[in-house]
Amino acid sequence: MRKVCVLGAGSWGTALSMVLEKNGYDVCLWTRREEQCDEINIRHTNEKYLDGIVLGEKIKSTTNILDAIKDAKLIVLAVPSQKIREICRKICDDIDREQIIVNVAKGIESNTGKRISEICLEEMPNNKYCMLSGPSHAEEVSRNIPTAVVVAADELEISQRVQDYFMNEFFRVYTNDDLIGVELAGATKNIIAFGAGILDGIEFGDNSKAALMTRGLTEISRFGVALGADLSTFSGLAGIGDLIVTCTSMHSRNRRAGILIGEGLTVEDTEEKINMVVEGITATRAVFKKAKQLGIEMPITECIYRVLNGEIDPKTGVTELMTRSKKHENEFIFKI
Amino acid sequence: MRKVCVLGAGSWGTALSMVLEKNGYDVCLWTRREEQCDEINIRHTNEKYLDGIVLGEKIKSTTNILDAIKDAKLIVLAVPSQKIREICRKICDDIDREQIIVNVAKGIESNTGKRISEICLEEMPNNKYCMLSGPSHAEEVSRNIPTAVVVAADELEISQRVQDYFMNEFFRVYTNDDLIGVELAGATKNIIAFGAGILDGIEFGDNSKAALMTRGLTEISRFGVALGADLSTFSGLAGIGDLIVTCTSMHSRNRRAGILIGEGLTVEDTEEKINMVVEGITATRAVFKKAKQLGIEMPITECIYRVLNGEIDPKTGVTELMTRSKKHENEFIFKI
Repeated sequence: MRKVCVLGAGSWGTALSMVLEKNGYDVCLWTRREEQCDEINIRHTNEKYLDGIVLGEKIKSTTNILDAIKDAKLIVLAVPSQKIREICRKICDDIDREQIIVNVAKGIESNTGKRISEICLEEMPNNKYCMLSGPSHAEEVSRNIPTAVVVAADELEISQRVQDYFMNEFFRVYTNDDLIGVELAGATKNIIAFGAGILDGIEFGDNSKAALMTRGLTEISRFGVALGADLSTFSGLAGIGDLIVTCTSMHSRNRRAGILIGEGLTVEDTEEKINMVVEGITATRAVFKKAKQLGIEMPITECIYRVLNGEIDPKTGVTELMTRSKKHENEFIFKI
Repeated sequence: MRKVCVLGAGSWGTALSMVLEKNGYDVCLWTRREEQCDEINIRHTNEKYLDGIVLGEKIKSTTNILDAIKDAKLIVLAVPSQKIREICRKICDDIDREQIIVNVAKGIESNTGKRISEICLEEMPNNKYCMLSGPSHAEEVSRNIPTAVVVAADELEISQRVQDYFMNEFFRVYTNDDLIGVELAGATKNIIAFGAGILDGIEFGDNSKAALMTRGLTEISRFGVALGADLSTFSGLAGIGDLIVTCTSMHSRNRRAGILIGEGLTVEDTEEKINMVVEGITATRAVFKKAKQLGIEMPITECIYRVLNGEIDPKTGVTELMTRSKKHENEFIFKI
């Protein structure tokens, strides 16, 4: 029995199904849409999400989520982070405790500020959980472009088992036992990617963007460490690796949303134009609130928060960041 | 007396002269070329290096290096790293011990493998030394694009004094007391930028490049820590910040050289075409040798070294890197 399932047939869920199928597994790919399900089963394509890609025949799709999870060794959660709880609730009565949950969504629950692992622990307390993260455009993974990611779990043995499922010649998987760090890096990098988009929108240069990314990394690391993460995770694939890809790609909704803000659009118009949840905006608000509570200095996040609230325009924000008092580069890095 | 001097009127030396002049200093900018000296003094331009930029009137140029350093509070070394020793020898008998040396060249001496501070200590043992580094295209600094850099010295007080000279609204300077780390980050990031260029040349995607940059950062950090650097420096402006700018810019000779290798040119043809020292090639050879001696695992550097030696082609190199044994993300990070 080599069955695994992937819940969510967007571009990332589909690309990961291809990796697992290549590695010899029977993949059941769940989607709520009948038409998409038929397309995958009959034509072996998923054109809206992965244009021009042919899927292997061992990828079968279903719209019945309980059929999807039945007897699957792995349950890959590839739905947007704001949908995770709903999906967990659909499956929690039918899962087996031996099934490993692999979350691939990056974000935090907007109304609670919780990490995805916290949601899963609440809804499915008996199952082992891990997160797969890192710099990985789905389109490139589907075309066998060499990609490296990280799998984090509280127990190293779980991340090693999941590493075995996914790793191949084109898809290199590192283990990591800092689950909190990988989760927080994945959620908070969206804040910095959103900020990088703003800088691109006001047409500042490469120097400004590299400075924002570096100093942004410093402050999200500071936030993570205060919440129990390892500093080194933020220098790894889930941290700086993903930040690099997100800040330089037009595939990133967070960056595109930032560009629109930088060009002068309002937050409302931006969200309407992007037409999907912008995780970076949700994360900015949640992280700013938490950082204030805990007394963690996060000047870039605070600046973006104030731009979102219409308190300052982006250019004034940059000037304020540039003219802060003189600092040592590593000031406060380990301090709450 | 507000005199400072900058030795070397390339794009970076000229842009830093502009920063210092804006901050109220009388800048003496040394060049060995009469014609360039006249252009700066008469037309207030340096068109070959900063096209379309007008220099402030308090920037005066000279071809007499001893006139340049006379009474200057700071001596900014803005010449290529392989020229530093020669320049030091020209001025060492005439400098005053109160003058602070600010090196802005990133590299290591090719025939000795020494850091620039080691060269300066040998040639000018009585002078305080610091290094200014970070993500900073000269063209952008000359156009007042917001830029953040780091100044590192063994003594914090020296880096704070130099911070005061350079810092302004557009040019934010952080202090750092990890001189070894800032020097090694500046030299070794050229290896990774060269590797990123190779990936671009063989037309791999964003995933591969982000993975290379992240895993490259891990191994140059490992190298740096083994030689006495602080790990955090590599996550800072002189490390990941500069790496981001270098790996994504066509201004970077190291990246451009890598692209040519990736496209299939020989090392000899590449060096001829670039027509200048490619620091990344020098650094790869020096660092590979040192890492071998010390037993530091640097798979990416080793791969690039073997590509340079014609032992493997770049694509085979990538496959070898991707199919190494399964790893934990932070394996060996603190281990020599």
